[in-house]
Amino acid sequence: MILVITGNGKGKTTSSIGQIIRALGHNQKVCLVQLFKGENFYGEQNILTKLEGLDFFSFAKQHPFCFKEVSKEKVIRECEQSLNKLQDISQNNKYNLIVLEEFNIAIRDNFIDETLFIDIIKKLNKKSNIVITGRGASQKLINIADLVSEIKEVKHPYNEGVPAQEGIEY
Amino acid sequence: MILVITGNGKGKTTSSIGQIIRALGHNQKVCLVQLFKGENFYGEQNILTKLEGLDFFSFAKQHPFCFKEVSKEKVIRECEQSLNKLQDISQNNKYNLIVLEEFNIAIRDNFIDETLFIDIIKKLNKKSNIVITGRGASQKLINIADLVSEIKEVKHPYNEGVPAQEGIEY
Repeated sequence: MILVITGNGKGKTTSSIGQIIRALGHNQKVCLVQLFKGENFYGEQNILTKLEGLDFFSFAKQHPFCFKEVSKEKVIRECEQSLNKLQDISQNNKYNLIVLEEFNIAIRDNFIDETLFIDIIKKLNKKSNIVITGRGASQKLINIADLVSEIKEVKHPYNEGVPAQEGIEY
Repeated sequence: MILVITGNGKGKTTSSIGQIIRALGHNQKVCLVQLFKGENFYGEQNILTKLEGLDFFSFAKQHPFCFKEVSKEKVIRECEQSLNKLQDISQNNKYNLIVLEEFNIAIRDNFIDETLFIDIIKKLNKKSNIVITGRGASQKLINIADLVSEIKEVKHPYNEGVPAQEGIEY
């Protein structure tokens, strides 16, 4: 099954983390590939790295929107490495669940090629359930997905000037 | 902060589980109170019960919509017990995060009194962040919440007759 979690509201990353915990609870093998997430920042990383059955990879830790000194070329190169990793995995895929964090953003911002990505996803999907997160999911990805949830922001304290809070937003 | 995760799409429970993992990763103290969830069924329960820093309570494990033999009176009694537990917690609240799973449903179906529930939430919120999940969040709850996400079902394989899958839906 291919699941896409998109939308502008809070809950996409936490939902994918919960999905990982659910699968691990059934002794499934899980692979998490994160883009655009700094390490040693998000609380969940401290727990996930200690759980058995989960392989955790992180690429392109800095998105140029947040880190102005990071060049687009560097990000494209790093995103390509994440696709190479997925190609490697597809050769000998042992995972029940593969979670691809913020890949919607990477497609939206043209850091990865949509057609190539969809080809890889289809190959991985023969053995694994796949969760893809990030706002702005592409229409082609939505078309091939089995399940799509859109998380809408109804109300968010950012809009009231409240800063991000440890344990809530990271 | 009071967070409400509602809507008809997949991702509410997994999002709250991810939120718990995030908070625990920062060594926060977390309390999870579940309604309408059978035990030894959802994969996440196997992991959560082993994590340090989390207290886990479950009430009204069967919703009459799914279990026709369960009387409304029994459910109301069990939901009252969950509110009693929350009242107890508010006397000596040590939690950074309190997650109240499916309480939106309990309000919608008149198993718990909305006004009483909101009073308790406000008391707990003096010390804790609170996450409330379930479809059909009430307008009064949305009004007092700081953050509201609505998870919309864009596409779901249930609609194609595909049964619930281990590691995905439970």
